[in-house]
Amino acid sequence: MSRPVVEFWYEFASSYSWLAVMRIEPLAEAAGVELAWRPFLLGPVFMALGWNDSPFNIYPPKGRYMWRDLERQAARHGLPFRRPSRFPRNSVLAARVALVGVGEGWVAPFSRAVMHANFAEDREIGEPAVIAEILAGLQLPAAEVLERAQAEANKLALRRQTERAAELGLFGAPSFRVGEELFWGNDRLEEALAWAAQAPAGG
Amino acid sequence: MSRPVVEFWYEFASSYSWLAVMRIEPLAEAAGVELAWRPFLLGPVFMALGWNDSPFNIYPPKGRYMWRDLERQAARHGLPFRRPSRFPRNSVLAARVALVGVGEGWVAPFSRAVMHANFAEDREIGEPAVIAEILAGLQLPAAEVLERAQAEANKLALRRQTERAAELGLFGAPSFRVGEELFWGNDRLEEALAWAAQAPAGG
Repeated sequence: MSRPVVEFWYEFASSYSWLAVMRIEPLAEAAGVELAWRPFLLGPVFMALGWNDSPFNIYPPKGRYMWRDLERQAARHGLPFRRPSRFPRNSVLAARVALVGVGEGWVAPFSRAVMHANFAEDREIGEPAVIAEILAGLQLPAAEVLERAQAEANKLALRRQTERAAELGLFGAPSFRVGEELFWGNDRLEEALAWAAQAPAGG
Repeated sequence: MSRPVVEFWYEFASSYSWLAVMRIEPLAEAAGVELAWRPFLLGPVFMALGWNDSPFNIYPPKGRYMWRDLERQAARHGLPFRRPSRFPRNSVLAARVALVGVGEGWVAPFSRAVMHANFAEDREIGEPAVIAEILAGLQLPAAEVLERAQAEANKLALRRQTERAAELGLFGAPSFRVGEELFWGNDRLEEALAWAAQAPAGG
């Protein structure tokens, strides 16, 4: 019998995606749920909603609140946190590399390392050198992986995945999908996993 | 020694405020926390952010998600729910009456009854007859209370309370305030109460 699957949609520039990426794997394991990692780009999704920047930048009170809430959530979950000096960061390269990692089985540790670089070390994850260093730290052939990540087919795959996100009604990240059921936000991570665990097999 | 206080900011038209109003009292009691009920109007706060309607109406994917999420949350908490045929409803009268109730000690049962009318019975809470019926059901002198609610001083008090919400950095409802600490959303209710319970006395 196959294990239930949760699609995990996340964006490397997104602050609450950071929390979910750092937390999800042991929780999914404990729930007996399989994860389908779905890195995507929130930018085009936000553009379609009429936002040309993060809503946390467009609406200052929301942004002020988010950074304080993030500090509290980091403390609650024992995660090191340093507010990025630039937000949101360019996440296109990281997402392309992550997509390669989905196919090759290292997307989870890569995603955690990128998120840690962005939200705990304030590093420029948009820079190829930073991504290369992260890959090397995971014993991966950085130059080769970066080449595959920047190949036309892989660029197109990320574009398609991002279009798919909008088609599925996603409007933010992280989001979780269980069958047709959509859950939005790091606050719904546990509920999405529990929903999957209770669903009929394959559902 | 005085009990810690949580300011509970809510809006009668707000779907997630409904969940918080229905849930908060026994949770606050269990946490040993005193509640300061702060009914206010989200409309002027939204206008200041550039929204002339609920964001759930302005951004259709957000709205579709919210109604489904609300169904799930209602089931989780065992609350009867019927999607209002009109959203958001005019909540000015209900908020004015609630402010009278803050002074007279019946704001909690009144607020629950109005929320139940709006989100479980699909009733027009903007109509004085509906509010009068709710007051009568609580053994309160409806005509007198409505008169006090519509008096200039009380109207002004609600306007001031709403201005205060914006000054405090509120951008949505429900919100909870513990000292200088702000928590946003029904999802943060438990965390706000725990924060208050752990804070130094008076903090």
